[in-house]
Amino acid sequence: VHETTWVERIGAQTTLRAGVELGIGDDAAVLSAPAPQVLTEDLLVEGVHFRRETTDAASLGHKALAASISDVAAMGAVPVAAVVGLVVPPDGGPDIGELYAGMEALAAEHAMTIAGGDLSKGPVTVLAVCVLGATPHGRAPLTRAGALPGDLVCVTGPLGGSEAGRLILERPELAPAPPVADALRAAHLRPAPRVADGLALAAAGAHALMDCSDGLALDLQRLAVASGCRAVLELEAVPRAPGADEVAAAAGRDPLEHAAGSGEDYELIAALPADRLDEAERLLERPLVVVGRFEEASPGLRLLRDGAPSEITTPGWVHDL
Amino acid sequence: VHETTWVERIGAQTTLRAGVELGIGDDAAVLSAPAPQVLTEDLLVEGVHFRRETTDAASLGHKALAASISDVAAMGAVPVAAVVGLVVPPDGGPDIGELYAGMEALAAEHAMTIAGGDLSKGPVTVLAVCVLGATPHGRAPLTRAGALPGDLVCVTGPLGGSEAGRLILERPELAPAPPVADALRAAHLRPAPRVADGLALAAAGAHALMDCSDGLALDLQRLAVASGCRAVLELEAVPRAPGADEVAAAAGRDPLEHAAGSGEDYELIAALPADRLDEAERLLERPLVVVGRFEEASPGLRLLRDGAPSEITTPGWVHDL
Repeated sequence: VHETTWVERIGAQTTLRAGVELGIGDDAAVLSAPAPQVLTEDLLVEGVHFRRETTDAASLGHKALAASISDVAAMGAVPVAAVVGLVVPPDGGPDIGELYAGMEALAAEHAMTIAGGDLSKGPVTVLAVCVLGATPHGRAPLTRAGALPGDLVCVTGPLGGSEAGRLILERPELAPAPPVADALRAAHLRPAPRVADGLALAAAGAHALMDCSDGLALDLQRLAVASGCRAVLELEAVPRAPGADEVAAAAGRDPLEHAAGSGEDYELIAALPADRLDEAERLLERPLVVVGRFEEASPGLRLLRDGAPSEITTPGWVHDL
Repeated sequence: VHETTWVERIGAQTTLRAGVELGIGDDAAVLSAPAPQVLTEDLLVEGVHFRRETTDAASLGHKALAASISDVAAMGAVPVAAVVGLVVPPDGGPDIGELYAGMEALAAEHAMTIAGGDLSKGPVTVLAVCVLGATPHGRAPLTRAGALPGDLVCVTGPLGGSEAGRLILERPELAPAPPVADALRAAHLRPAPRVADGLALAAAGAHALMDCSDGLALDLQRLAVASGCRAVLELEAVPRAPGADEVAAAAGRDPLEHAAGSGEDYELIAALPADRLDEAERLLERPLVVVGRFEEASPGLRLLRDGAPSEITTPGWVHDL
């Protein structure tokens, strides 16, 4: 099918929403987003971030967009528009219509617009999703760099679910009972970026925010280094997705390491002053999980397990290039 | 080399410029661009858009950014910030430092910022460059859709140079004398996006604007269809880059078809009311080339050659997916 035909089809299945004046079809999309804006791009590469055998086209679209929305959420901002680069392999790759349908459904949930992009041939499927977001009321975006000694380390939800989902997609024999297994697969294939949580944490007065897309231990270390203080993480306090411990154990992994060291969960990590915890939970309308604290010490991460210093072998997801 | 190390190195070699508050290193870049903004993304895929044998790393960086800046220029906007997705093949691919140096040099020319992005492993080099731009004085961006019957079809400079440059990089035996050949290679490897020209044409009152990155014949047809009128293109009036005719002829191609049907020149096509030509040339500080006109007829392109209806076999660059 001709590239131009696809651009027309994709244009026909996307909806323009608030903040976007002109979408797919011109040299560039036209937006009207209030300053300050946030801008991010994420890559999903076949054979690196996903396998086609275990990722249907609609989930792939959802997941690629979710990763970039999560980065916007991690700044305390809301997504406005995405532009999408799609490389299509010789065999046609995942169904392009389904892929954009998966993206469009998530875009609709977040009242944002798939506003443009580019299509190309190539050896494997690659998705390069760029999202522009904006903060409400012109509030300054919340970076990784503001944590202060004494702040609590909070996470917005259970971890390890996405990696457990990936494991049981690859090795169905590891799967727990169906409802739990379904939730784990969904955590991997259809992650929900925490936009509302990011807004609530920013409004409650969090000092720093980021998503833990590469794993809590690795991302918390990055946050601590950016903030110039030390994070103490209590491994046994890390909330685990239902079934994640069971799958990790079946795969021969330590469940606590699994939860703290596996990526793609897209929960948020916040540095929150202790006296803002109640207000944050009121705005979030659910409890936060306190997994540690920041302290004045050389920047980095200190892991504790039942109060004793600890280490984990695989702290998270990172490429060797 | 570790991904994190590269992110640090790339961050160290980029400069924050006006409109960007926070660059590489957080979940997202922070910008303050006045509304309206324009947003675009372009893909460059190894083996499809370039070959490593004929494209050095710095040129590749330049070229990838230039393609997206050109889309911003084609809206009458100026680039503010880019986020860059880079897929790195197993052998390391083009030198990453050189590649970003090529981008940074072009970003400096346009007073814009390389503000973020993503790195991944993958089978071949892929660059996915997203650029955000803004129009001066809150002026509405100039789309493809405004051409009116009676408008002139103008182009900002000579065509066919990039494709001639590509041809002589692939087949050195086709090269003309050195200074001409050098200019053709530079047209291919280091194209100059026409940001100032886009601003001048918008200020002069152009009705529609786009870049001719996929070839004049194809892109003018798209502009005419978007505008709901017919474009008449006089092939013999198409300005040709010095040496392009000679290289095209040596490669067995018709020089006029070569100029009108080859891509990556990044000159702009404008629909300009005849009474705005003088003002446009005054603002551009050089002549425009009038290559045809728009007329009231079923939307599309009509090619003339010395006054007689004509056709070209390869109207431009488009993927079959």
